[in-house]
Amino acid sequence: MAYRLQRVSSLQPLARVCIAVDCMGGDHGPSATLPGCRAFLASHPQAELILVGTESALTGAKGWERCQTVFATEVVSMDDPIEVAMRRKKDSSLRVAVAQVKAGEADDARAQACVSAGNTGALMAVARYLLKTVEGIDRPAIAAYLPNAKGRLTQVLDLGANVDCTAEHLLQFAVMGSALASALSGDENPSVGLLNIGEEAIKGSETIKRAAELLRAAAADGHLNFHGNVEGNDIFKGTTDIVVCDGFVGNVMLKTSEGLAAMLGGMIREEFRRNLFTRLAALASLPVLNHFKARVDHRRYSGGALLGLKGLVFKAHGSSDAFAFEQALARAYDAARNRLLERVHDRILETLQAMPTAVDESNLSPAQ
Amino acid sequence: MAYRLQRVSSLQPLARVCIAVDCMGGDHGPSATLPGCRAFLASHPQAELILVGTESALTGAKGWERCQTVFATEVVSMDDPIEVAMRRKKDSSLRVAVAQVKAGEADDARAQACVSAGNTGALMAVARYLLKTVEGIDRPAIAAYLPNAKGRLTQVLDLGANVDCTAEHLLQFAVMGSALASALSGDENPSVGLLNIGEEAIKGSETIKRAAELLRAAAADGHLNFHGNVEGNDIFKGTTDIVVCDGFVGNVMLKTSEGLAAMLGGMIREEFRRNLFTRLAALASLPVLNHFKARVDHRRYSGGALLGLKGLVFKAHGSSDAFAFEQALARAYDAARNRLLERVHDRILETLQAMPTAVDESNLSPAQ
Repeated sequence: MAYRLQRVSSLQPLARVCIAVDCMGGDHGPSATLPGCRAFLASHPQAELILVGTESALTGAKGWERCQTVFATEVVSMDDPIEVAMRRKKDSSLRVAVAQVKAGEADDARAQACVSAGNTGALMAVARYLLKTVEGIDRPAIAAYLPNAKGRLTQVLDLGANVDCTAEHLLQFAVMGSALASALSGDENPSVGLLNIGEEAIKGSETIKRAAELLRAAAADGHLNFHGNVEGNDIFKGTTDIVVCDGFVGNVMLKTSEGLAAMLGGMIREEFRRNLFTRLAALASLPVLNHFKARVDHRRYSGGALLGLKGLVFKAHGSSDAFAFEQALARAYDAARNRLLERVHDRILETLQAMPTAVDESNLSPAQ
Repeated sequence: MAYRLQRVSSLQPLARVCIAVDCMGGDHGPSATLPGCRAFLASHPQAELILVGTESALTGAKGWERCQTVFATEVVSMDDPIEVAMRRKKDSSLRVAVAQVKAGEADDARAQACVSAGNTGALMAVARYLLKTVEGIDRPAIAAYLPNAKGRLTQVLDLGANVDCTAEHLLQFAVMGSALASALSGDENPSVGLLNIGEEAIKGSETIKRAAELLRAAAADGHLNFHGNVEGNDIFKGTTDIVVCDGFVGNVMLKTSEGLAAMLGGMIREEFRRNLFTRLAALASLPVLNHFKARVDHRRYSGGALLGLKGLVFKAHGSSDAFAFEQALARAYDAARNRLLERVHDRILETLQAMPTAVDESNLSPAQ
């Protein structure tokens, strides 16, 4: 059955989008985030930013158009334990930036999304504490995009927010992932694959089998476009738009891929540096190698979205330079503009209502 | 504490090693396995083979030195369900080959190891049924080797034989992996890493935390060289000799890596074929690219070992050509010659005795 979520596709894009930026986060801090913000503002003439950071760090942004500054006195470092970010550094740029998207009684959120390149664990914990999860979602998830052989991007979630997921959690991830994909790509019918293993064993754990049942049921009711089980190689093949897995598997998958790419890149460099002849070959191949490098440039994909919270929070990769940070800002902008929060809310509402153990709708308050 | 397993390292290599070969298995069957056997025999002047296959398939091997032939009337296809291999095709080459390593009352195994490129699920099921698991091992595991940035190989297990592993299973995998590593590399003290996730979440599930405790205890008693937790990127970095994980995670990791490598390879080819200039660059770079290709040639790593059975069974990759099949035969030969079966038995015995819930030693019969 062709799936069209009429309600969602009829949502009008937001006219005004303001993004709160944690300017202190990431390995490079303001020296990467501020130029990233500047480039983003130049390419997004409608966008507004709230720059959050220490007073001295933000002097460079004085007088920028469409920018407000909010000062924070503390900085969460990349290796601060979650407890420090939560309990001790209450005036950190990370926390103050997240607080900008927290809507109060009068729906007075100052920003429609927040972007940080900071410590992921701290960002998730703070965002969860300040924003709370959307009704109907038990656990937020981290989604990210990986390039695939079809020249498109595969969204994978969860990437490390949750270990030991239940089948219901995996269904929620599928729903949130679909909402993100439709907000970013405009495709209201993105396909979802459930990450499983092949013929080498009994096919998947009990949790995976049950999750497949739930996903099939949601698809039969037209709430999802469920493709079926996929295997690890399908992520980079681009078999489906979205791949759903638990956070343990997702995190291992992501880090293994980073490790393999780094090893192969290192080996190619080594081979081309072996002797004078190979160095000449490298020179001849430079345009080819650079083109290849641009295609697999992780800065275009790095970072992710924290989904399932009552507020949009995007994570730029910790090692982001200005270009990578700009990409994260652009993604957050698109998501906010295309009303990701309402999309997640609407889809979850629909899906849960159709479930055998549907929750009472009165428990589901409107998204902010 | 420096760990040296005196008993194991004092084991003398076997003088005579005979390997049973399922000549019908794999995508290419006898057209790959027989040339692989021939090359293996040429490079291993002490080795003997039992070639198992249909009478017509084995005519090509008539008169080969150090070879016996055993005929089987059936062939398990690559997509036969496990039930077909187990219940219907009882005279399959796969099953007859495995049966050659089954020791009877009088310790009369005809071969010291078996190699097949056939259907992994069928091979594991048949091997488990015919050979049984070693006492002290609850579940057999599949181990394989992946290249790492240090120019060595990282052994990873389990790769798909088991989903939903307990902490005790992970400990058993570590013990079996250590035995395999010491048999193949001669290093009696290989390091073991437990695959876990990073700072992005609560560090690992309850199972992983408990497995880490068991591994630490085994290391404290000198039975293992436990390095600690490792993350996905450590596999290709080569942080430890062995990486232990459950079969679901291992399978996803392996297939994702295959998918990523295939995508990157495809992209490089595409870039070099883009136009006349890039084709010339490819020509200039040919020696470099070929050298790189040889370094990452999956045929050298493909396939794995089925560990924890009362008999050695090695799996060549389903897509094996003659070279890849020869590598699998060589690995099986080394493992048998260095008495992997006794190593697994000895290490398991030691480790379990030291565990808080040590089993009665009288239940542990000597390895075959």
